[in-house]
Amino acid sequence: MNLTEFDQAEIAAARDQNAPTRRATVPALEALLFTPVPVLDHGFVRVIDYMGDDAAVVQAARVSYGRGTRKVSEDEGLIRYLMRHRHSTPFEMCEIKFHVKLPIFVARQWIRHRTANVNEYSARYSVMDREFYIPAPEHLAAQSASNRQGRGDVLEGDEAAAVLALLREDADRNYSHYEYMLNEAEADPDRRGLARELARMNLTLNAYTQWYWKTDLHNLFHFLSLRADSHAQYEIRVYADAMLAMTRAWVPASCRAFEEYRLGAVSFSATMLAILRRMLAGEAVDQASSGLSKREWGEMMSVLHR
Amino acid sequence: MNLTEFDQAEIAAARDQNAPTRRATVPALEALLFTPVPVLDHGFVRVIDYMGDDAAVVQAARVSYGRGTRKVSEDEGLIRYLMRHRHSTPFEMCEIKFHVKLPIFVARQWIRHRTANVNEYSARYSVMDREFYIPAPEHLAAQSASNRQGRGDVLEGDEAAAVLALLREDADRNYSHYEYMLNEAEADPDRRGLARELARMNLTLNAYTQWYWKTDLHNLFHFLSLRADSHAQYEIRVYADAMLAMTRAWVPASCRAFEEYRLGAVSFSATMLAILRRMLAGEAVDQASSGLSKREWGEMMSVLHR
Amino acid sequence: MNLTEFDQAEIAAARDQNAPTRRATVPALEALLFTPVPVLDHGFVRVIDYMGDDAAVVQAARVSYGRGTRKVSEDEGLIRYLMRHRHSTPFEMCEIKFHVKLPIFVARQWIRHRTANVNEYSARYSVMDREFYIPAPEHLAAQSASNRQGRGDVLEGDEAAAVLALLREDADRNYSHYEYMLNEAEADPDRRGLARELARMNLTLNAYTQWYWKTDLHNLFHFLSLRADSHAQYEIRVYADAMLAMTRAWVPASCRAFEEYRLGAVSFSATMLAILRRMLAGEAVDQASSGLSKREWGEMMSVLHR
Amino acid sequence: MNLTEFDQAEIAAARDQNAPTRRATVPALEALLFTPVPVLDHGFVRVIDYMGDDAAVVQAARVSYGRGTRKVSEDEGLIRYLMRHRHSTPFEMCEIKFHVKLPIFVARQWIRHRTANVNEYSARYSVMDREFYIPAPEHLAAQSASNRQGRGDVLEGDEAAAVLALLREDADRNYSHYEYMLNEAEADPDRRGLARELARMNLTLNAYTQWYWKTDLHNLFHFLSLRADSHAQYEIRVYADAMLAMTRAWVPASCRAFEEYRLGAVSFSATMLAILRRMLAGEAVDQASSGLSKREWGEMMSVLHR
Repeated sequence: MNLTEFDQAEIAAARDQNAPTRRATVPALEALLFTPVPVLDHGFVRVIDYMGDDAAVVQAARVSYGRGTRKVSEDEGLIRYLMRHRHSTPFEMCEIKFHVKLPIFVARQWIRHRTANVNEYSARYSVMDREFYIPAPEHLAAQSASNRQGRGDVLEGDEAAAVLALLREDADRNYSHYEYMLNEAEADPDRRGLARELARMNLTLNAYTQWYWKTDLHNLFHFLSLRADSHAQYEIRVYADAMLAMTRAWVPASCRAFEEYRLGAVSFSATMLAILRRMLAGEAVDQASSGLSKREWGEMMSVLHR
Repeated sequence: MNLTEFDQAEIAAARDQNAPTRRATVPALEALLFTPVPVLDHGFVRVIDYMGDDAAVVQAARVSYGRGTRKVSEDEGLIRYLMRHRHSTPFEMCEIKFHVKLPIFVARQWIRHRTANVNEYSARYSVMDREFYIPAPEHLAAQSASNRQGRGDVLEGDEAAAVLALLREDADRNYSHYEYMLNEAEADPDRRGLARELARMNLTLNAYTQWYWKTDLHNLFHFLSLRADSHAQYEIRVYADAMLAMTRAWVPASCRAFEEYRLGAVSFSATMLAILRRMLAGEAVDQASSGLSKREWGEMMSVLHR
Repeated sequence: MNLTEFDQAEIAAARDQNAPTRRATVPALEALLFTPVPVLDHGFVRVIDYMGDDAAVVQAARVSYGRGTRKVSEDEGLIRYLMRHRHSTPFEMCEIKFHVKLPIFVARQWIRHRTANVNEYSARYSVMDREFYIPAPEHLAAQSASNRQGRGDVLEGDEAAAVLALLREDADRNYSHYEYMLNEAEADPDRRGLARELARMNLTLNAYTQWYWKTDLHNLFHFLSLRADSHAQYEIRVYADAMLAMTRAWVPASCRAFEEYRLGAVSFSATMLAILRRMLAGEAVDQASSGLSKREWGEMMSVLHR
Repeated sequence: MNLTEFDQAEIAAARDQNAPTRRATVPALEALLFTPVPVLDHGFVRVIDYMGDDAAVVQAARVSYGRGTRKVSEDEGLIRYLMRHRHSTPFEMCEIKFHVKLPIFVARQWIRHRTANVNEYSARYSVMDREFYIPAPEHLAAQSASNRQGRGDVLEGDEAAAVLALLREDADRNYSHYEYMLNEAEADPDRRGLARELARMNLTLNAYTQWYWKTDLHNLFHFLSLRADSHAQYEIRVYADAMLAMTRAWVPASCRAFEEYRLGAVSFSATMLAILRRMLAGEAVDQASSGLSKREWGEMMSVLHR
């Protein structure tokens, strides 16, 4: 992550702001505010605003219950109850806004989460920077033979070197041609310059873009449950992991409940539940007698005997 | 609006909170925070949290433009540009949370705005209060003869008195029976008491409920454009009017743009635009030669010659 | 459920329509189309339109895979895979529209599902019918002592009779006063009549309303998972049950997968999963050594030993 | 647009389907069903399913009015009334599903419309085709000097030739390297092949992708009002134009109302409205006395004197 002096001065200025407020504040998140956390080779994620805290979740839940139930000691228990029973609306009462710099192919996965507010850097209006994602050698994975959306072993030797060279050269050449077509910097007076909205089509999908991304805590948890998961592509998972750490600082009780009842939880189907009951009753069950396909049986066993 | 001593103490305590924050703060809105503004006979609306300010709208818009365009003096012009051209996403970067007490029939209209987060007082879990909306005499309107969703003149004399007496007696009697069926306060030990989730069905639609309602600035403007409008039912419009005043304190430049380009604006159809051009060219146009129906012609004339 | 002759003629006419289409059709759902299924004492639900079928789910999923994987024999397996791994977007490719008549207090729960399209009968424009929900004696439940949102035993004898009489008389009286205030039928020429949008506030929450409700299959499943569940209030669960039966006729393979992996599934938290592993390894675990609260331990045991 | 024999056979088979249905059908849209309409050099758009028609809009609106108002002759008037007064929910009762093939940079604009259901071809699972968008010479526009998101004159001569050559060569070379890195076709046994989810990052933003895109009529109109507009980028506008033509075949009355009250309409701000009134009263108003900025005055005059 390269920050220009300009960027650094702006972040320092934002962090120097200090105003009194009657709103809920979270000192642990205030400490992180505005500071970018590096992700991948040139990306980052940082929190730039937030609304609410664990107490706001509790407050919203208690609208339903009336006054009698307000006991501070029970707050975490209530939050766990809400998470366990998927009472999601109280978690919608908290809101957070991130500033993210990320490769375009990651942005294309991310944007599929529709319940969020987004403002992205526009390549229609502005000129993109010369920055591309090039995987670190240890993330240069082969196609998995068994799982079409998965990765296999890491490429090595000549193959790895060839791939890295191609990714670097192609992104760089295409960017140079993008600049040439634009004809903006050190412009050639004999050329008009191609419209930005057209020239951008020459860029590669590993070019970096950036956006503000704002969502409520319930939808953030949904995003994290899918993207901080081992099935998510590595290049988006590292963003989710960084955001999960920030969420822990922001709403620690809600986040503990999320990790207990969602991230770390497992769902057993009706058939699996019947198998579990047989097993706990002492019966020896194997795949043939389970009613599950080999694939599902394998999934179930790997969860139970991990 | 009756606030119990408990409520008053809680509001005072919330207003006494004062913590430093690095986030954007709006002193004019901080001054209003938590204080309920009375609406109708027992209702209120109050702001209990917010995120962002006019500068957050500008900041989001400028992600698209890159650094070169940042001039503070142009902020209001940019906000007006965004509003005029319906670039709505930067306004989604601000968020506000209200606590509202309102009659159930108003809540039923309000909830149709789907892009918001809501936690409502639950009559399944809790016992409702004995509070109903009874219109002030000057709002006791007759059915409009010309407009099926509109109101005509105000009822007077015996008819008004009879209506008010019925509304009051029916709401009150039904509430008493609700309490009786619940059998909770001063309970009769020989009765079990009806489930709350069932007993509530005896309440009238003017009973008061309350909720937290959280939305972003773009969707708030959409709500206000429909509900702070003369076509909206009076009983929801008074809430929208109170919220519009709060919005002016929060994001004054955005709100000015909203009043100029949305609330105070008029849309002319393709046919109306052709008529306007003929008129401005000096032609005398009447309904017969306009191509408009009598109704639309009337609407157009009333806008132009108000 | 009382259908007027007019209603019956209209339903018969709709069912008599028969046009050729190139779209996917589902004969089992066509057979049900337009026919109302009675729910509660005066309510109903009926399907009035639909788009797509099980094959549309498969088709959308296969956009991701390219041509090579198209084998009809694998369709149900693919649908089960999608449901198991919460790949929800292919289920959004099917759409269904219901016409529902339901008590207002049920409508108020239902409308909280925001991802749907709704057109409701408007008591601002139109006069409501004299129809109220009165529970059947076997559903006249007492408040549960242990669970504030639950129901206990059924009321009996004098108490039941008193409750039913109150519900009936109050709804009926309030409706009569509503009609009187409107002054529309057999109007008294000396009275103006109260505006409909005001008079309606005198109605009780068990008055029936009706709406068209349209949603996609993914969001329908979400609705059914919450409302066809034993924790849902009986009065909304009966609608969900009727809709689940219709969904089985419409998309049988998707519905089987939904019942296996969602409706009939159970989620175990991280802590519960650790307990399960200990149990399956032969260890005797009790609540004290489990790390669970008594409440959660009870929930877990009731699932495992049902 | 190149369709393989396989594609052509599949489309023909789909068009040969013919089943009876009780649902609303629209013969004019049935005639278009499944047939791709070419857009840009390799793209297309086609309707693959729909629900509802103009009568479904009317039916939903009339739920609000009760029976008395049903007169077939008034249907178009009612639709125009709904559109004029932005009563949008009845238009949500119709649904349509498109299959679209489009360049990735167009897809990135399009996906910002969040109220739609989408299933996109996955470059994580599947290998992309060697197809890129190369503008026709007459669309190879220079950057506008006056409007940063706009296009100026068309490039000519050597500059045009150079740009086209670069776009073609870069897209092609990057695709060849993508194939090489994948090592799937005519695979070199000594290389493992890079994971698809990584190799795709070498592709350019003019590569074609495809998706199913499903939305309701209200949100389709919103999409068309922004994308069939002269301010939209040409490369997305051509898709919107093709979809507008299909929408006319599907719901002709609704579409006429949309073109009259939305596409062809103009909004005048509060200040502009005051100016209009002065002008119509015979007053000579110029920019200096108008209260408008030069830019807004210019916009207003260009609308009035076009």
